[in-house]
Amino acid sequence: MDSATALALTIAGGRTPIALHFSYRQRTERRERRSFDALCDFYAIKSRYTFDLGFFADIGASALTDLSIDVPQYADRAAAQGIPVTYVPFRNGIFLSIAAAVAEKESADEIVIGAVEEDSSGYPDCRERFLREMQTAIGLGVRDTTKIAINAPLIHLSKEQIVREALRLNVPLRLTWSCYQDGEKACGVCESCRLRLKGFTLANAVDPIAYFSN
Amino acid sequence: MDSATALALTIAGGRTPIALHFSYRQRTERRERRSFDALCDFYAIKSRYTFDLGFFADIGASALTDLSIDVPQYADRAAAQGIPVTYVPFRNGIFLSIAAAVAEKESADEIVIGAVEEDSSGYPDCRERFLREMQTAIGLGVRDTTKIAINAPLIHLSKEQIVREALRLNVPLRLTWSCYQDGEKACGVCESCRLRLKGFTLANAVDPIAYFSN
Repeated sequence: MDSATALALTIAGGRTPIALHFSYRQRTERRERRSFDALCDFYAIKSRYTFDLGFFADIGASALTDLSIDVPQYADRAAAQGIPVTYVPFRNGIFLSIAAAVAEKESADEIVIGAVEEDSSGYPDCRERFLREMQTAIGLGVRDTTKIAINAPLIHLSKEQIVREALRLNVPLRLTWSCYQDGEKACGVCESCRLRLKGFTLANAVDPIAYFSN
Repeated sequence: MDSATALALTIAGGRTPIALHFSYRQRTERRERRSFDALCDFYAIKSRYTFDLGFFADIGASALTDLSIDVPQYADRAAAQGIPVTYVPFRNGIFLSIAAAVAEKESADEIVIGAVEEDSSGYPDCRERFLREMQTAIGLGVRDTTKIAINAPLIHLSKEQIVREALRLNVPLRLTWSCYQDGEKACGVCESCRLRLKGFTLANAVDPIAYFSN
């Protein structure tokens, strides 16, 4: 939902996006890829990169990429402190680095990322300070003539605001996927589902995707 | 040679390294992997990660990963200006991001990289300023309790100094590979071979690896 809304904002701003998808052996790899393809088709995006980052499974250390670690339900999560087990070490750092390489090759001047800092799971690589610092690092690690900004248009939005923004932009939310579990329907009980559903409730809207329970 | 010398310095400093190897569909992928394995065996390194980054070929844009772009000979390179076609967009940024994920998982407090700023090919991602900025970005993108320094012990050394350092530390230079071409012997004429050979000459030493010509 966040990526799709960031994409819609980019297109609404008159820009021509190159779409990047990362498969990193996350539980929902196939489901997310389906959403990526469907969203790219919907927005008629011609230039697409799909990256197979199988090495994330070798690093492991996250419930999203290590199937032996259970995805916690929101109730358990709320009782816990700190960064959840769904945190994938430096995931956005790796994604942004690869995006920087693509941007330099394609002479793109902006990387758009749907990261959300507040109203999120507290992942350190979703903080605006981190994104700003990565932009500086990328600027020093590419050709001096290459200028790449990192744009995170949702960074300070709540999930409610993201839902409202998505509805305003007619984002096809039925094509998106947020659940951490790989079911035919969304589980409705993981933290990602809970944050998404709370956003729809507060925005007085109905989530068009199917849930097992909620 | 640079990685091996950085590794030897790390071990000489009393540290226990985790060795990382990146295959990124570079021309010399198999040859470099052979060197990695041999060096790890020589130094009896137990913890090793070998990452298959096949996606670099999808990005392309470099003579090292795009076989349709010829590796220039040093004579041509010297006549040219700026960053050579062997530059792989943001390569070290991607390597360092993956190393950061491993470091966070393994509770390692340092990433050691054999990057050389002077007496090198002028790649932007080998500059000390970039490495410093990446260290800051990584610090903001991982758990607040994770502290990861980037250590580039060769960054200000000339190739001559690196050869002298390697000899002082008894680095098994016969096991290393610098050539950009994938031959049974090193080509002796690409920029990487030329820089290496110049280092040996200035250090009054003989390179133990075999060359087709030099």
